[in-house]
Amino acid sequence: MNHNVVSKLQKTLGYIFTKKDLLIQALTHRSANSKHNERLEFLGDSILSFVIANALYHFFPNVNEGDMSRMRATLVKGNTLAKIASEFNLGNYLQLGQGELKSGGFRRESILANTIEALIGSIFLDSNLKTVEKLILKWYKKRLEKISPGDTQKDPKTRLQEYLQSKHLPLPSYLVEQVYGEAHNQLFTIYCEISGVNEKLIGIGSSRRKAEQEAAQNALTKLGLE
Amino acid sequence: MNHNVVSKLQKTLGYIFTKKDLLIQALTHRSANSKHNERLEFLGDSILSFVIANALYHFFPNVNEGDMSRMRATLVKGNTLAKIASEFNLGNYLQLGQGELKSGGFRRESILANTIEALIGSIFLDSNLKTVEKLILKWYKKRLEKISPGDTQKDPKTRLQEYLQSKHLPLPSYLVEQVYGEAHNQLFTIYCEISGVNEKLIGIGSSRRKAEQEAAQNALTKLGLE
Repeated sequence: MNHNVVSKLQKTLGYIFTKKDLLIQALTHRSANSKHNERLEFLGDSILSFVIANALYHFFPNVNEGDMSRMRATLVKGNTLAKIASEFNLGNYLQLGQGELKSGGFRRESILANTIEALIGSIFLDSNLKTVEKLILKWYKKRLEKISPGDTQKDPKTRLQEYLQSKHLPLPSYLVEQVYGEAHNQLFTIYCEISGVNEKLIGIGSSRRKAEQEAAQNALTKLGLE
Repeated sequence: MNHNVVSKLQKTLGYIFTKKDLLIQALTHRSANSKHNERLEFLGDSILSFVIANALYHFFPNVNEGDMSRMRATLVKGNTLAKIASEFNLGNYLQLGQGELKSGGFRRESILANTIEALIGSIFLDSNLKTVEKLILKWYKKRLEKISPGDTQKDPKTRLQEYLQSKHLPLPSYLVEQVYGEAHNQLFTIYCEISGVNEKLIGIGSSRRKAEQEAAQNALTKLGLE
């Protein structure tokens, strides 16, 4: 990457790297080079998780653990990170191998989300926790101001539907794959079909409704959305 | 808690609290008081996760993300935390409600594990990240020296069996709950039965072996062991 491109990204991030190679490594997907960003992503993920937990702990002194967990899940999920990545135009800076250059949709979003975590890891290594914490809180400012304990509790089917709608994708189909047991003591297996996703997304529950919610939750997890 | 008891615990932990009420809160289960340790546990969990991730990142410069994740999972899982709690004799200091005083086994282990996380959260709030990081690394010294990328990869059935054996509990039974589909394209549902656990622990897979491993993994998660 040339000097101008690097400067522009550093300006967007709000941080100037001392060790430029850490920045380059954070932007490098494993498809592009053996010196890629996965270890940085591992480190960055845990830093992000702590910084957000600590912020929520102090912003919401009277909210219980369950609500804090749900708010954190909303703030650190792949979908949120991919949005931050797109605000940073991170797609322009990614170092991808030939195979990944063409990939779009869910796969690309997940690469972008992981790169945000890798950047957090690399900034931490280049500076210290205080510095990266301040930066994360700046990146998250509007999201932290907007979040409240109630609004992350939409059920998985609703969240999946809203996500697919936001991407102008067809809605999922829920198919009964099997019903096991006798009336009043049945176990339902539901298959959630999403266009473009080949993986088997299944939910099991004592009612059709519960099994569908579990399948939707499974889909959200597999899509890297939470 | 009287002064002597508090001093003894602080000596064991290797930390003297400025705000004693934070220590008391960390030891208080929700069954005992409305000012309990769950929020501290949420905070402590994320601190522990970051401190261990950071340690592994530096101790193992050439290990990939997957191996680091597995090592971290081993180090922060409920079972490990419960062992640390028992090294600290933490059971003697817990503040429990009447209902919980008699509970033993899995339930007691999970309360002890959560209390270690709550103590981490409370020490962080009483001091700063550097202080609690140093302390965690001291508590984990021998475990960090012992861990290596290979030895956390035992399969879930083996891990479950070893755990139950270590507690002198009967081994689990794996029952075929159903087989779906035609030969060469079947889906097995396996039910893992563990004495004393009423929850339905199920695994689904394209072979009996895979479904059993998934059921065992599900059991490990439900038991709070990872």
